[in-house]
Amino acid sequence: MEYPQLVWYCSALSTEITDTPLARMICEKPIVFYRGKSGKVVALEDRCAHRQAPLSLGRVQGDDIECSYHGFVFDCSGACVYVPRQDTVPKSARIASYPVVERWGYIWLWLDDPAKADPNCVPHLPWTEDKALRAVYFRFDVNANFQLMADNLMDVSHTEFLHRTSIGSQTGRRGQDEETKVDLDCRVEGDRVHFVRRVHNTLLGPVATKWAGSSKPVTRSNTLMWEAPNTIHSVLEFQNEETHNTVHMEHIMTPRTATSTFYFMNWVRDFGTDNVGYPTDEDVRREQTAVVCGEDIPMVEAQQRNIDLFGMVQDVPARQDRFITAVHHTLRQIYAKADKPVPAELQRLAVLRQAG
Amino acid sequence: MEYPQLVWYCSALSTEITDTPLARMICEKPIVFYRGKSGKVVALEDRCAHRQAPLSLGRVQGDDIECSYHGFVFDCSGACVYVPRQDTVPKSARIASYPVVERWGYIWLWLDDPAKADPNCVPHLPWTEDKALRAVYFRFDVNANFQLMADNLMDVSHTEFLHRTSIGSQTGRRGQDEETKVDLDCRVEGDRVHFVRRVHNTLLGPVATKWAGSSKPVTRSNTLMWEAPNTIHSVLEFQNEETHNTVHMEHIMTPRTATSTFYFMNWVRDFGTDNVGYPTDEDVRREQTAVVCGEDIPMVEAQQRNIDLFGMVQDVPARQDRFITAVHHTLRQIYAKADKPVPAELQRLAVLRQAG
Amino acid sequence: MEYPQLVWYCSALSTEITDTPLARMICEKPIVFYRGKSGKVVALEDRCAHRQAPLSLGRVQGDDIECSYHGFVFDCSGACVYVPRQDTVPKSARIASYPVVERWGYIWLWLDDPAKADPNCVPHLPWTEDKALRAVYFRFDVNANFQLMADNLMDVSHTEFLHRTSIGSQTGRRGQDEETKVDLDCRVEGDRVHFVRRVHNTLLGPVATKWAGSSKPVTRSNTLMWEAPNTIHSVLEFQNEETHNTVHMEHIMTPRTATSTFYFMNWVRDFGTDNVGYPTDEDVRREQTAVVCGEDIPMVEAQQRNIDLFGMVQDVPARQDRFITAVHHTLRQIYAKADKPVPAELQRLAVLRQAG
Repeated sequence: MEYPQLVWYCSALSTEITDTPLARMICEKPIVFYRGKSGKVVALEDRCAHRQAPLSLGRVQGDDIECSYHGFVFDCSGACVYVPRQDTVPKSARIASYPVVERWGYIWLWLDDPAKADPNCVPHLPWTEDKALRAVYFRFDVNANFQLMADNLMDVSHTEFLHRTSIGSQTGRRGQDEETKVDLDCRVEGDRVHFVRRVHNTLLGPVATKWAGSSKPVTRSNTLMWEAPNTIHSVLEFQNEETHNTVHMEHIMTPRTATSTFYFMNWVRDFGTDNVGYPTDEDVRREQTAVVCGEDIPMVEAQQRNIDLFGMVQDVPARQDRFITAVHHTLRQIYAKADKPVPAELQRLAVLRQAG
Repeated sequence: MEYPQLVWYCSALSTEITDTPLARMICEKPIVFYRGKSGKVVALEDRCAHRQAPLSLGRVQGDDIECSYHGFVFDCSGACVYVPRQDTVPKSARIASYPVVERWGYIWLWLDDPAKADPNCVPHLPWTEDKALRAVYFRFDVNANFQLMADNLMDVSHTEFLHRTSIGSQTGRRGQDEETKVDLDCRVEGDRVHFVRRVHNTLLGPVATKWAGSSKPVTRSNTLMWEAPNTIHSVLEFQNEETHNTVHMEHIMTPRTATSTFYFMNWVRDFGTDNVGYPTDEDVRREQTAVVCGEDIPMVEAQQRNIDLFGMVQDVPARQDRFITAVHHTLRQIYAKADKPVPAELQRLAVLRQAG
Repeated sequence: MEYPQLVWYCSALSTEITDTPLARMICEKPIVFYRGKSGKVVALEDRCAHRQAPLSLGRVQGDDIECSYHGFVFDCSGACVYVPRQDTVPKSARIASYPVVERWGYIWLWLDDPAKADPNCVPHLPWTEDKALRAVYFRFDVNANFQLMADNLMDVSHTEFLHRTSIGSQTGRRGQDEETKVDLDCRVEGDRVHFVRRVHNTLLGPVATKWAGSSKPVTRSNTLMWEAPNTIHSVLEFQNEETHNTVHMEHIMTPRTATSTFYFMNWVRDFGTDNVGYPTDEDVRREQTAVVCGEDIPMVEAQQRNIDLFGMVQDVPARQDRFITAVHHTLRQIYAKADKPVPAELQRLAVLRQAG
């Protein structure tokens, strides 16, 4: 499929890249990542120019990489610099190299013209480095289109159903005695979309109750900002007379293929920052993995399989889908500006626009 | 592929449908089945109109079903009757609903114009309710075209080879000292085909010997009737001076896809009906599962894989294939009458007609 | 794809063919092999002419085979000779039969016009029967094109990288203090290609050191001869003042499909022939399986997957690839002479020719 261009793709956690080469497909391109002796992160096409063996099966030598099939060596620009048993190297022995930035605990990859790769355009995640807060990082692998997974994170209203018994609120169901009220606000600024959803006077699911540190009703706020290709900045707050706890999160979706996605996440809290009382980093890891892998991903993958089965049926938007609607509209404009066809996935969802 | 139209498709055992929704694909259509609070069985398109999540992951509420992703609720007509946080429901929020009849221990589904759904056309299986007999039900899942599996059940001559050491007869092999005689009779009446095969003076395999209740040679009779789309009514009798035991069976084939099939079966006996002496229900379950899953299904699936490998080779019919031949001929006429193209599977098999 | 014609395809080890039928696909054709009562090896199309059940699920009767679905019997010419319960057999009940030669411990199959099947054209492997030597046979299954696997065996230079820590030599790496010298010689004679590679004064990996029977530097020689479709005769020698040990090997590649291969091998040694001291047959089996299944096949399969991902990128040949280059050139000429299109796999690799 057509992927968004001229953007940095979050491709790995910093901790994933070592001197053992890592094979990872980004936007259908097979890429080998490794950290050279100098600490520099390198991203090359994952093939030896000689006989197409994956370089990811090779060995790092300084900042270079040696193919383990016949010993050809490539430097970090993608040029072959050594062929065993011969003095010269054919000029055509060259593979693609990709610009990389390491920042905020992630590896960001540029797939377009290297001359246009501006490190200042990497999304801004300063709270990951704030000494008063404490960050935990995740990578999840999802068998669904990256837009479907992003939509899940933008559509906060699902927390009251899919996450009812974990991190959601206990409200919104048909026939329920409703005392809660919901405020929504959505605002587009250039290529960014801002959204606030605030639920007043709500009881929380058991995990969210522990985060809030209060079992009384709270005001639960989600403040979100989306930017291309699919980074969702989210600030989650629980507030009442007893408490005010905040979590900064980024949900960053990177296409592996049209139907598989890397979902990166950082979960940055302003409570339990001593990592001794609840929650410790390990609590956060366990809880988030349970929710994302046990509730979100199975649903999004089921949705993808159903879309594949039913073909191009059109979604029927709800009033609460305003944020997704605005984001899809923005994405369509980005494709149009670049004279690119809008991917099928965004055409199907585009009908949500009318509900905006 | 093209499936037979204007017929009731056996889709589930009655016992399979509860207030936990069941996802099942019938004729390539993903359908959710559930039993509402009233006891009514409901069959809906298995997708939420909002964002295409499978309703089969949802929760039954009365006779309605709630999507567990965002809480939309659908009634048994397929109309959306509730959207969280809004007073009105978009008219377009609607999915298909299918007529259903629960009868003879099965759920029968109608995929065509509901106005034409006549419950009187459900196949007639009265022995399943006869107090003097005792019924055991089965569902087998087969990775082959439903016609191939049906052909297996119509072609009784395979019992002497494939089931030689279980439920078959010990006769018919090359070089065997033959004292048996076989009578065949085939008769077409409208869209139904009748067939009788009688083997005289035959020894039986060990399991069939136990059913017969006699280790002496018997007359073994199969009396069969086929009706569309692929229900095979079968009466199996073992008779000699010592014994006369009878089994009423229905073998009912429903397409899941062009190469996968639900095979429903009821096995109704006039012996061991106290469920204390041999055979108990558990004996029947164990024996049938061993024969169908250990002998029939592996062969039919191997046949399907071979047909896929060899492409359109034509079958060479035998004299004993008269019943299949007549059924295929009838099915071709049904397709022709409906102005539908004959499925490839029936074209390949159609050459059997000349042997009829 | 198009496979080489008018050649004998090595299809099984002699020991694999018994009176239990064996299903094996050769060049995309499903074939059943069995050994009749007379000891004769039979190769038939693996389908019953009646209803396309695989005959490989059947039973051998004398030199004939009985289908286990409905009891049809076929003789070794592919003619049906018995249909249960009828006196005559339809003339059209006939399947293909293939010429077979059993020689040198292998079963060789002819897929073209039987009139052209000349047993004298089976590759010549006399050392497998030399009483002074001792042979061990192997069959490996590879998920890659047969040419890719053959290239691995023809390209001896990979032993210094892929097999560095097992059967290779400890030499050739960038920055290594080189005292070794490599001689190459390549010679084309008609449709055969001869090649010698000799590494002087080299240290060996641990397994090769055990074969050589000397831990001092040796001269390591590989003398190879290739013939169509893809049989590689190889003589491996280790020699210094202490030792001179020799292994005769054949590597024989047979296409299962365009992306799967049977790799047959015989490993014939002139040392340890009493099968008591090192190496015993069991040592050979364990060592070769570890190297081929742990080092060669994973690399060739990774190469195949990469070629599938990257599409038609062209290889950049090295000076040491002279043998592969000459073989591909010869194969292209064989296809051209037969007025057949050159397979994609050989087009991609054909650029190696320029380096020859």
